[in-house]
Amino acid sequence: MGNVLVLYYSKDGSTKRMAEYVAEGARQVSDIDVRLRSTQDAAHEDVLWCDGMAVGSPTYLGTVAAEMKRFWENLLPVWQKIDGKIGCAFSSEGGWGGGAELTCMAMMTIMLNYGMLVFGVTDYSGHQFTLHYGATQAGEPREEKEVEACRRLGRRLAEWVAVYVDGREDLHPNQAGYKRVP
Amino acid sequence: MGNVLVLYYSKDGSTKRMAEYVAEGARQVSDIDVRLRSTQDAAHEDVLWCDGMAVGSPTYLGTVAAEMKRFWENLLPVWQKIDGKIGCAFSSEGGWGGGAELTCMAMMTIMLNYGMLVFGVTDYSGHQFTLHYGATQAGEPREEKEVEACRRLGRRLAEWVAVYVDGREDLHPNQAGYKRVP
Amino acid sequence: MGNVLVLYYSKDGSTKRMAEYVAEGARQVSDIDVRLRSTQDAAHEDVLWCDGMAVGSPTYLGTVAAEMKRFWENLLPVWQKIDGKIGCAFSSEGGWGGGAELTCMAMMTIMLNYGMLVFGVTDYSGHQFTLHYGATQAGEPREEKEVEACRRLGRRLAEWVAVYVDGREDLHPNQAGYKRVP
Amino acid sequence: MGNVLVLYYSKDGSTKRMAEYVAEGARQVSDIDVRLRSTQDAAHEDVLWCDGMAVGSPTYLGTVAAEMKRFWENLLPVWQKIDGKIGCAFSSEGGWGGGAELTCMAMMTIMLNYGMLVFGVTDYSGHQFTLHYGATQAGEPREEKEVEACRRLGRRLAEWVAVYVDGREDLHPNQAGYKRVP
Repeated sequence: MGNVLVLYYSKDGSTKRMAEYVAEGARQVSDIDVRLRSTQDAAHEDVLWCDGMAVGSPTYLGTVAAEMKRFWENLLPVWQKIDGKIGCAFSSEGGWGGGAELTCMAMMTIMLNYGMLVFGVTDYSGHQFTLHYGATQAGEPREEKEVEACRRLGRRLAEWVAVYVDGREDLHPNQAGYKRVP
Repeated sequence: MGNVLVLYYSKDGSTKRMAEYVAEGARQVSDIDVRLRSTQDAAHEDVLWCDGMAVGSPTYLGTVAAEMKRFWENLLPVWQKIDGKIGCAFSSEGGWGGGAELTCMAMMTIMLNYGMLVFGVTDYSGHQFTLHYGATQAGEPREEKEVEACRRLGRRLAEWVAVYVDGREDLHPNQAGYKRVP
Repeated sequence: MGNVLVLYYSKDGSTKRMAEYVAEGARQVSDIDVRLRSTQDAAHEDVLWCDGMAVGSPTYLGTVAAEMKRFWENLLPVWQKIDGKIGCAFSSEGGWGGGAELTCMAMMTIMLNYGMLVFGVTDYSGHQFTLHYGATQAGEPREEKEVEACRRLGRRLAEWVAVYVDGREDLHPNQAGYKRVP
Repeated sequence: MGNVLVLYYSKDGSTKRMAEYVAEGARQVSDIDVRLRSTQDAAHEDVLWCDGMAVGSPTYLGTVAAEMKRFWENLLPVWQKIDGKIGCAFSSEGGWGGGAELTCMAMMTIMLNYGMLVFGVTDYSGHQFTLHYGATQAGEPREEKEVEACRRLGRRLAEWVAVYVDGREDLHPNQAGYKRVP
């Protein structure tokens, strides 16, 4: 049974809302244990515990919030102990074009630095709406395609954990029973 | 009188549409000469001629199209002759979250490599809509905030050329007569 | 038995040299089949065949060469057929500080766009020499730490394929018999 | 007379050493006032005062240190007051390939977000050694080409301030009396 951690920092609640949907999506895959933690609540043990993690931060100035960055700097005692875990990212920005993609890339860069395997999602969650580098959102998700982008990210994370860590090859998204492009 | 080049590559017409709006925005500033050129039409002389340029490419796989990249590789004969020109970027992607910000950053990276000064825009062109790293768009711009983001990019480029190359300090955006945040 | 593809584009031979060392490193892991292909020689079938791939391009203007980019654009017929493959990157630049890290990130961005899982390496291959975002090199590798960085990248790729695709958990780098930091 | 701020955060002294060389390079241009400040010492007034700034941070996990990020988040009261200032970046990493280029890009992303004009340097400071995206260094600069890369960054910043803010066109690097490529 695979373990998924959804880790987020949120100030105004938008990224927290995204995190909840990401966790909801991860729970759509059977036999995956999901923990939802803010940077205030998460312990190093949560990071060591998980097989895959989704990391979310608001977009501040086109990159990860200092608070989330600090969390990862404080994680240095577990460096070279989390190599190979699977990772992905999500971010809420002030407006479209405001840097959420860049923030997702910044968080994936941090995970690459820890030796993790990070991924994007080829699916579309609605018309002209995707999550190729993680789920991005202006403000908080409201429309169905926005909510579904968050869920799909969590689901895909849980699927990769199921396939690669638990050896459940039937859960590979290329055999998915749901529509990946509307 | 400053010179602005709007350079684009477009296959399905979306990026071309953006380019036209960017050129329109540049023309809002008086005494700026504007050229609109596709990668097929642009000559090295156009690049040498301009004081500032806006570069647009569709987002293909999260970065600049091979065709636009090829244009810049072919430009190597003018390397170290375009240092200090002012640059910015715009891109049309298949869907929101599809990599247009990353593509703008890729084009600005290329311009940095040529010694250019590149910029983003702090303004918002509508509710939850901005162009902090250049104008980004899913498909082609239709709504007013989308069209205005393209125009604003061109206008800001022309303003920086006016301020820095022509010494017209009264055109500094911090003294703008228009609303920069709605 | 896992399959590893080392795919490269090289003009002056430096990236090709890196590619050969990357392939050599992948072969250090038992029961891994390795193919070494240039963009001229590689077929779509090679991409579909592999479980993991290392992608190498010279750094041209701080990002991937147009020729390599074109290869991936031509690969669109296999889009959503290569999700979940494991990827990493390497690049030769003209000088240190010349953009090889950015080029590795650009290639990983392309792979993310295809739904792949990409990774960096926490190991150091010598004093003040690492491959956190893939192997980077000014010119061609000559010193042992430079050659070893390429080999280590290939080895790590083969290890992840062994662990995740073949279920050979004993090959997880956290149990490696070799020194990961000198 | 133009004003240049060299702003840095340093823990072990390597980035501080780089900052001192950057400031030294800026002082090579006549009639430029240079301030050297750490994030602990710098006031918002220093940022408002300058026409151009070089920003330096150690590379922590492939991106800007939380402490430097916090400085810029705390700067939000001057948002839309520093548009158009000229910026560049430098970073010390643990090892070559360790993310210093990515960290420079992260700092330039932050500056883009503030509406600044950021630049790279086409010059080489020695054999296979450049600063295309800002000065990067493993540990602290020791060799002449390493020291000169820092100096050149500061000099170029001061030159752009002289050319664009003070209208001293004779200082354009394309007319430089020194060798830009060895």
